[in-house]
Amino acid sequence: MSRRKRLELDERRAQLLSLALAAFSTKSYDDVSIDELAQAAGVSKGLLYHYFPSKRDLYLTTVREAAEQLMARIVPDPSLGPLEQVSRGVDAYLLYVHDNADAYLSLMQSGIGRDQEVYAIVEHTRHEFVNVVFERAGQALLNPLQRTLVRGWVGMVEAASLDWLKTESVGREELTRLLVKTLLYSVQLGIPKK
Amino acid sequence: MSRRKRLELDERRAQLLSLALAAFSTKSYDDVSIDELAQAAGVSKGLLYHYFPSKRDLYLTTVREAAEQLMARIVPDPSLGPLEQVSRGVDAYLLYVHDNADAYLSLMQSGIGRDQEVYAIVEHTRHEFVNVVFERAGQALLNPLQRTLVRGWVGMVEAASLDWLKTESVGREELTRLLVKTLLYSVQLGIPKK
Repeated sequence: MSRRKRLELDERRAQLLSLALAAFSTKSYDDVSIDELAQAAGVSKGLLYHYFPSKRDLYLTTVREAAEQLMARIVPDPSLGPLEQVSRGVDAYLLYVHDNADAYLSLMQSGIGRDQEVYAIVEHTRHEFVNVVFERAGQALLNPLQRTLVRGWVGMVEAASLDWLKTESVGREELTRLLVKTLLYSVQLGIPKK
Repeated sequence: MSRRKRLELDERRAQLLSLALAAFSTKSYDDVSIDELAQAAGVSKGLLYHYFPSKRDLYLTTVREAAEQLMARIVPDPSLGPLEQVSRGVDAYLLYVHDNADAYLSLMQSGIGRDQEVYAIVEHTRHEFVNVVFERAGQALLNPLQRTLVRGWVGMVEAASLDWLKTESVGREELTRLLVKTLLYSVQLGIPKK
Protein backbone atom coordinates (compact mmCIF):
# COMPACT_ATOMS: atom_id res chain seq x y z
CA MET A 1 0.00 0.00 0.00
CA SER A 2 1.35 3.43 -0.93
CA ARG A 3 2.22 5.95 1.73
CA ARG A 4 -0.45 8.29 0.43
CA LYS A 5 -3.10 5.59 0.52
CA ARG A 6 -2.19 4.75 4.13
CA LEU A 7 -2.44 8.40 5.09
CA GLU A 8 -5.87 8.58 3.52
CA LEU A 9 -6.97 5.55 5.51
CA ASP A 10 -5.60 7.03 8.73
CA GLU A 11 -7.38 10.30 8.06
CA ARG A 12 -10.63 8.51 7.31
CA ARG A 13 -10.31 6.54 10.55
CA ALA A 14 -9.59 9.72 12.53
CA GLN A 15 -12.60 11.42 10.94
CA LEU A 16 -14.86 8.49 11.85
CA LEU A 17 -13.57 8.49 15.43
CA SER A 18 -14.12 12.21 15.76
CA LEU A 19 -17.73 11.89 14.54
CA ALA A 20 -18.26 8.89 16.82
CA LEU A 21 -16.87 10.76 19.81
CA ALA A 22 -19.30 13.62 19.23
CA ALA A 23 -22.20 11.18 18.87
CA PHE A 24 -21.37 9.04 21.93
CA SER A 25 -20.73 12.21 23.97
CA THR A 26 -24.19 13.56 23.39
CA LYS A 27 -26.47 10.53 22.96
CA SER A 28 -27.07 7.31 24.81
CA TYR A 29 -25.38 4.21 23.42
CA ASP A 30 -28.66 2.85 22.05
CA ASP A 31 -29.46 6.14 20.34
CA VAL A 32 -26.20 6.35 18.38
CA SER A 33 -26.89 5.18 14.82
CA ILE A 34 -24.15 3.57 12.76
CA ASP A 35 -26.13 4.44 9.63
CA GLU A 36 -26.13 8.13 10.53
CA LEU A 37 -22.42 8.08 11.36
CA ALA A 38 -21.53 6.50 8.02
CA GLN A 39 -23.73 9.01 6.22
CA ALA A 40 -22.17 11.98 8.05
CA ALA A 41 -18.70 10.72 7.15
CA GLY A 42 -19.74 10.13 3.54
CA VAL A 43 -18.74 6.46 3.65
CA SER A 44 -20.68 3.23 3.26
CA LYS A 45 -21.75 1.29 6.32
CA GLY A 46 -19.55 -1.53 4.99
CA LEU A 47 -16.46 0.67 5.05
CA LEU A 48 -17.23 1.83 8.57
CA TYR A 49 -17.46 -1.79 9.70
CA HIS A 50 -14.15 -2.40 7.92
CA TYR A 51 -12.53 0.01 10.37
CA PHE A 52 -14.65 -0.91 13.39
CA PRO A 53 -16.16 -4.41 13.36
CA SER A 54 -19.06 -3.51 15.69
CA LYS A 55 -20.75 -0.55 17.34
CA ARG A 56 -19.30 -1.69 20.64
CA ASP A 57 -15.82 -1.77 19.12
CA LEU A 58 -16.28 1.75 17.75
CA TYR A 59 -17.45 2.95 21.16
CA LEU A 60 -14.57 1.35 23.04
CA THR A 61 -12.11 2.83 20.54
CA THR A 62 -13.46 6.34 21.07
CA VAL A 63 -13.13 5.92 24.85
CA ARG A 64 -9.59 4.61 24.44
CA GLU A 65 -8.71 7.54 22.17
CA ALA A 66 -10.09 10.05 24.67
CA ALA A 67 -8.02 8.39 27.41
CA GLU A 68 -4.86 8.48 25.28
CA GLN A 69 -5.38 12.12 24.34
CA LEU A 70 -5.72 12.97 28.02
CA MET A 71 -2.60 11.02 28.98
CA ALA A 72 -0.55 12.53 26.16
CA ARG A 73 -1.36 15.97 27.52
CA ILE A 74 -0.47 15.45 31.15
CA VAL A 75 3.02 13.91 31.02
CA PRO A 76 5.19 16.50 32.75
CA ASP A 77 8.84 17.29 32.10
CA PRO A 78 10.87 14.76 34.14
CA SER A 79 13.64 17.29 34.73
CA LEU A 80 11.34 19.35 36.97
CA GLY A 81 11.16 18.88 40.74
CA PRO A 82 8.55 16.36 42.04
CA LEU A 83 6.09 18.97 43.31
CA GLU A 84 6.37 20.99 40.11
CA GLN A 85 5.63 17.82 38.11
CA VAL A 86 2.51 17.16 40.17
CA SER A 87 1.33 20.75 39.65
CA ARG A 88 2.00 20.67 35.92
CA GLY A 89 0.22 17.32 35.61
CA VAL A 90 -2.89 18.58 37.41
CA ASP A 91 -2.88 21.83 35.46
CA ALA A 92 -2.59 19.96 32.14
CA TYR A 93 -5.41 17.64 33.25
CA LEU A 94 -7.72 20.61 33.90
CA LEU A 95 -6.68 22.23 30.62
CA TYR A 96 -7.55 19.03 28.76
CA VAL A 97 -10.93 18.86 30.53
CA HIS A 98 -11.62 22.46 29.58
CA ASP A 99 -10.57 22.11 25.92
CA ASN A 100 -12.12 18.67 25.36
CA ALA A 101 -15.25 18.69 27.44
CA ASP A 102 -17.09 16.23 25.18
CA ALA A 103 -14.27 13.70 25.17
CA TYR A 104 -13.84 14.04 28.92
CA LEU A 105 -17.54 13.56 29.56
CA SER A 106 -17.47 10.47 27.34
CA LEU A 107 -14.67 9.08 29.42
CA MET A 108 -16.09 9.90 32.83
CA GLN A 109 -19.85 10.00 32.76
CA SER A 110 -21.98 7.05 33.62
CA GLY A 111 -23.25 4.76 30.94
CA ILE A 112 -25.62 1.86 31.12
CA GLY A 113 -24.84 -1.36 32.95
CA ARG A 114 -21.53 -2.37 34.40
CA ASP A 115 -18.93 -2.88 31.78
CA GLN A 116 -15.55 -4.42 32.53
CA GLU A 117 -13.95 -3.21 29.32
CA VAL A 118 -15.06 0.39 29.74
CA TYR A 119 -14.12 0.28 33.41
CA ALA A 120 -10.69 -1.11 32.57
CA ILE A 121 -9.95 1.81 30.24
CA VAL A 122 -11.07 4.40 32.78
CA GLU A 123 -9.23 2.67 35.64
CA HIS A 124 -6.07 2.37 33.56
CA THR A 125 -6.24 6.11 32.87
CA ARG A 126 -6.63 6.86 36.58
CA HIS A 127 -3.71 4.62 37.38
CA GLU A 128 -1.56 6.28 34.72
CA PHE A 129 -2.56 9.68 36.02
CA VAL A 130 -1.34 8.72 39.49
CA ASN A 131 1.83 7.30 37.98
CA VAL A 132 2.55 10.30 35.83
CA VAL A 133 1.89 13.00 38.35
CA PHE A 134 2.91 11.08 41.39
CA GLU A 135 5.12 8.02 40.98
CA ARG A 136 8.10 10.17 40.17
CA ALA A 137 7.29 12.02 43.34
CA GLY A 138 7.61 8.79 45.27
CA GLN A 139 4.46 6.69 44.88
CA ALA A 140 6.57 3.57 45.45
CA LEU A 141 7.03 4.80 48.99
CA LEU A 142 3.32 5.04 49.74
CA ASN A 143 1.73 2.71 52.27
CA PRO A 144 -1.65 1.06 51.50
CA LEU A 145 -3.66 3.72 53.37
CA GLN A 146 -1.90 6.50 51.47
CA ARG A 147 -2.68 4.70 48.22
CA THR A 148 -6.37 4.58 49.14
CA LEU A 149 -6.28 8.31 49.88
CA VAL A 150 -4.37 9.14 46.68
CA ARG A 151 -6.78 6.99 44.71
CA GLY A 152 -9.55 8.94 46.42
CA TRP A 153 -7.86 12.19 45.50
CA VAL A 154 -7.94 11.18 41.80
CA GLY A 155 -11.71 10.83 42.25
CA MET A 156 -11.69 14.33 43.72
CA VAL A 157 -9.86 15.73 40.67
CA GLU A 158 -12.44 14.07 38.39
CA ALA A 159 -15.49 15.22 40.32
CA ALA A 160 -14.13 18.73 40.85
CA SER A 161 -13.35 18.90 37.10
CA LEU A 162 -16.91 18.01 36.20
CA ASP A 163 -18.29 20.66 38.55
CA TRP A 164 -15.75 23.24 37.39
CA LEU A 165 -16.70 22.63 33.72
CA LYS A 166 -20.26 23.59 34.57
CA THR A 167 -19.73 26.38 37.06
CA GLU A 168 -16.32 27.91 36.19
CA SER A 169 -16.22 28.66 39.88
CA VAL A 170 -12.50 29.48 39.90
CA GLY A 171 -9.50 29.98 37.60
CA ARG A 172 -7.57 26.92 36.41
CA GLU A 173 -4.36 27.89 38.17
CA GLU A 174 -6.09 28.40 41.49
CA LEU A 175 -7.99 25.11 41.23
CA THR A 176 -4.71 23.33 40.41
CA ARG A 177 -3.08 24.89 43.45
CA LEU A 178 -5.90 23.82 45.78
CA LEU A 179 -6.06 20.27 44.39
CA VAL A 180 -2.31 19.85 44.82
CA LYS A 181 -2.57 21.13 48.40
CA THR A 182 -5.33 18.58 49.06
CA LEU A 183 -3.12 15.82 47.64
CA LEU A 184 -0.25 16.75 49.91
CA TYR A 185 -2.62 16.95 52.88
CA SER A 186 -4.07 13.50 52.07
CA VAL A 187 -0.65 11.90 51.76
CA GLN A 188 0.36 13.40 55.07
CA LEU A 189 -2.87 12.10 56.69
CA GLY A 190 -1.83 8.60 55.68
CA ILE A 191 1.46 8.69 57.58
CA PRO A 192 1.20 6.26 60.52
CA LYS A 193 1.19 7.91 63.90
CA LYS A 194 4.31 7.16 65.93
CA MET B 1 -56.89 -6.41 45.32
CA SER B 2 -56.50 -8.06 48.72
CA ARG B 3 -53.77 -6.98 51.09
CA ARG B 4 -52.21 -10.42 50.87
CA LYS B 5 -52.19 -10.35 47.10
CA ARG B 6 -50.51 -6.96 47.10
CA LEU B 7 -47.88 -8.20 49.50
CA GLU B 8 -47.21 -11.14 47.20
CA LEU B 9 -46.79 -8.80 44.26
CA ASP B 10 -44.42 -6.58 46.25
CA GLU B 11 -42.38 -9.59 47.30
CA ARG B 12 -42.21 -10.85 43.75
CA ARG B 13 -41.06 -7.46 42.55
CA ALA B 14 -38.40 -7.27 45.29
CA GLN B 15 -37.20 -10.75 44.37
CA LEU B 16 -36.91 -9.80 40.69
CA LEU B 17 -35.00 -6.64 41.57
CA SER B 18 -32.63 -8.52 43.79
CA LEU B 19 -31.88 -11.05 41.03
CA ALA B 20 -31.52 -8.22 38.51
CA LEU B 21 -29.14 -6.36 40.78
CA ALA B 22 -26.90 -9.41 41.08
CA ALA B 23 -26.97 -9.92 37.31
CA PHE B 24 -26.28 -6.29 36.36
CA SER B 25 -23.55 -6.11 39.02
CA THR B 26 -21.57 -8.92 37.51
CA LYS B 27 -22.30 -8.88 33.78
CA SER B 28 -22.30 -6.29 31.06
CA TYR B 29 -25.68 -4.86 30.09
CA ASP B 30 -25.73 -6.80 26.82
CA ASP B 31 -24.90 -10.05 28.60
CA VAL B 32 -27.78 -9.89 31.07
CA SER B 33 -30.55 -12.15 29.81
CA ILE B 34 -34.18 -11.41 30.62
CA ASP B 35 -35.00 -15.06 29.86
CA GLU B 36 -32.50 -16.25 32.45
CA LEU B 37 -33.76 -13.77 35.04
CA ALA B 38 -37.36 -14.87 34.57
CA GLN B 39 -36.30 -18.50 34.80
CA ALA B 40 -34.26 -17.92 37.99
CA ALA B 41 -37.25 -16.16 39.58
CA GLY B 42 -39.60 -18.92 38.48
CA VAL B 43 -41.86 -16.51 36.58
CA SER B 44 -42.79 -16.16 32.93
CA LYS B 45 -41.07 -13.58 30.77
CA GLY B 46 -44.50 -11.97 30.34
CA LEU B 47 -44.90 -11.47 34.09
CA LEU B 48 -41.42 -9.97 34.35
CA TYR B 49 -42.34 -7.50 31.60
CA HIS B 50 -45.53 -6.76 33.53
CA TYR B 51 -43.37 -5.43 36.37
CA PHE B 52 -40.64 -3.90 34.19
CA PRO B 53 -41.69 -2.98 30.65
CA SER B 54 -38.15 -3.23 29.22
CA LYS B 55 -34.66 -4.41 30.09
CA ARG B 56 -33.60 -0.80 30.28
CA ASP B 57 -36.42 -0.06 32.70
CA LEU B 58 -35.41 -3.01 34.88
CA TYR B 59 -31.81 -1.81 34.86
CA LEU B 60 -32.70 1.78 35.76
CA THR B 61 -34.94 0.53 38.57
CA THR B 62 -32.10 -1.54 40.09
CA VAL B 63 -29.80 1.50 39.98
CA ARG B 64 -32.50 3.66 41.57
CA GLU B 65 -33.06 1.03 44.27
CA ALA B 66 -29.36 0.86 45.05
CA ALA B 67 -29.27 4.67 45.32
CA GLU B 68 -32.28 4.70 47.64
CA GLN B 69 -30.86 1.96 49.85
CA LEU B 70 -27.66 3.96 50.17
CA MET B 71 -29.48 7.18 51.02
CA ALA B 72 -31.74 5.49 53.55
CA ARG B 73 -28.64 4.33 55.39
CA ILE B 74 -26.75 7.58 55.62
CA VAL B 75 -29.32 10.02 57.00
CA PRO B 76 -27.85 11.04 60.35
CA ASP B 77 -29.70 12.03 63.49
CA PRO B 78 -30.53 15.75 63.14
CA SER B 79 -30.17 16.30 66.87
CA LEU B 80 -26.42 15.70 66.67
CA GLY B 81 -23.89 18.50 66.17
CA PRO B 82 -22.95 19.35 62.54
CA LEU B 83 -19.54 17.70 62.62
CA GLU B 84 -20.92 14.58 64.27
CA GLN B 85 -23.59 14.38 61.54
CA VAL B 86 -20.92 14.57 58.85
CA SER B 87 -18.91 11.83 60.54
CA ARG B 88 -21.95 9.58 61.00
CA GLY B 89 -22.96 10.14 57.36
CA VAL B 90 -19.53 9.19 56.02
CA ASP B 91 -19.29 6.21 58.34
CA ALA B 92 -22.74 4.96 57.26
CA TYR B 93 -21.74 5.47 53.62
CA LEU B 94 -18.65 3.27 54.07
CA LEU B 95 -20.66 0.69 55.98
CA TYR B 96 -23.18 0.52 53.14
CA VAL B 97 -20.36 0.14 50.59
CA HIS B 98 -18.88 -2.66 52.63
CA ASP B 99 -22.15 -4.52 53.19
CA ASN B 100 -23.55 -3.99 49.68
CA ALA B 101 -20.52 -4.12 47.45
CA ASP B 102 -22.47 -5.42 44.44
CA ALA B 103 -25.13 -2.73 44.64
CA TYR B 104 -22.50 -0.04 45.15
CA LEU B 105 -20.48 -1.24 42.17
CA SER B 106 -23.65 -1.22 40.07
CA LEU B 107 -24.24 2.35 41.06
CA MET B 108 -20.70 3.62 40.61
CA GLN B 109 -18.86 1.62 38.01
CA SER B 110 -18.63 2.59 34.40
CA GLY B 111 -21.12 1.27 31.93
CA ILE B 112 -21.28 1.62 28.20
CA GLY B 113 -22.01 4.90 26.46
CA ARG B 114 -23.11 8.09 28.08
CA ASP B 115 -26.50 7.83 29.61
CA GLN B 116 -28.41 10.84 30.91
CA GLU B 117 -30.86 8.78 32.93
CA VAL B 118 -28.20 6.71 34.67
CA TYR B 119 -26.11 9.81 35.22
CA ALA B 120 -29.08 11.67 36.69
CA ILE B 121 -29.63 8.94 39.30
CA VAL B 122 -25.97 8.88 40.30
CA GLU B 123 -25.72 12.67 40.37
CA HIS B 124 -28.88 12.96 42.41
CA THR B 125 -27.40 10.53 44.93
CA ARG B 126 -24.20 12.56 45.16
CA HIS B 127 -26.20 15.71 45.64
CA GLU B 128 -28.29 14.10 48.37
CA PHE B 129 -25.16 12.81 50.04
CA VAL B 130 -23.77 16.34 50.19
CA ASN B 131 -27.12 17.59 51.47
CA VAL B 132 -27.44 14.93 54.10
CA VAL B 133 -23.96 15.04 55.51
CA PHE B 134 -23.28 18.66 54.82
CA GLU B 135 -26.21 21.00 54.26
CA ARG B 136 -27.17 20.88 57.89
CA ALA B 137 -23.56 21.75 58.58
CA GLY B 138 -23.99 24.91 56.52
CA GLN B 139 -23.82 24.09 52.82
CA ALA B 140 -26.01 27.12 52.10
CA LEU B 141 -23.12 29.23 53.28
CA LEU B 142 -20.63 27.76 50.81
CA ASN B 143 -19.26 29.91 48.01
CA PRO B 144 -18.98 28.49 44.44
CA LEU B 145 -15.33 27.46 44.86
CA GLN B 146 -16.14 25.64 48.10
CA ARG B 147 -18.98 23.86 46.31
CA THR B 148 -16.57 22.69 43.60
CA LEU B 149 -14.21 21.39 46.27
CA VAL B 150 -17.00 19.68 48.26
CA ARG B 151 -18.31 18.13 45.04
CA GLY B 152 -14.72 16.98 44.44
CA TRP B 153 -14.59 15.56 47.94
CA VAL B 154 -17.68 13.42 47.20
CA GLY B 155 -15.69 12.00 44.27
CA MET B 156 -12.89 11.31 46.75
CA VAL B 157 -15.25 9.39 49.05
CA GLU B 158 -16.45 7.30 46.08
CA ALA B 159 -13.00 6.55 44.70
CA ALA B 160 -11.51 5.86 48.13
CA SER B 161 -14.47 3.53 48.85
CA LEU B 162 -13.83 1.53 45.69
CA ASP B 163 -10.13 1.17 46.57
CA TRP B 164 -10.91 0.34 50.19
CA LEU B 165 -13.36 -2.40 49.11
CA LYS B 166 -10.52 -4.11 47.26
CA THR B 167 -7.59 -3.47 49.57
CA GLU B 168 -9.11 -3.12 53.06
CA SER B 169 -6.16 -0.84 53.65
CA VAL B 170 -7.56 0.63 56.85
CA GLY B 171 -10.41 0.28 59.35
CA ARG B 172 -13.73 1.94 58.59
CA GLU B 173 -13.59 4.33 61.53
CA GLU B 174 -10.12 5.53 60.63
CA LEU B 175 -11.04 6.05 56.96
CA THR B 176 -14.12 8.01 58.06
CA ARG B 177 -11.95 10.20 60.29
CA LEU B 178 -9.48 10.95 57.50
CA LEU B 179 -12.17 11.67 54.91
CA VAL B 180 -13.92 14.08 57.27
CA LYS B 181 -10.58 15.81 57.95
CA THR B 182 -10.06 16.16 54.19
CA LEU B 183 -13.54 17.65 53.82
CA LEU B 184 -12.86 20.25 56.50
CA TYR B 185 -9.50 21.02 54.91
CA SER B 186 -11.11 21.45 51.47
CA VAL B 187 -13.82 23.76 52.78
CA GLN B 188 -11.18 25.86 54.51
CA LEU B 189 -9.11 26.00 51.28
CA GLY B 190 -12.10 27.57 49.55
CA ILE B 191 -12.32 30.52 51.95
CA PRO B 192 -11.33 33.67 50.00
CA LYS B 193 -8.06 35.21 51.11
CA LYS B 194 -8.49 38.60 52.76
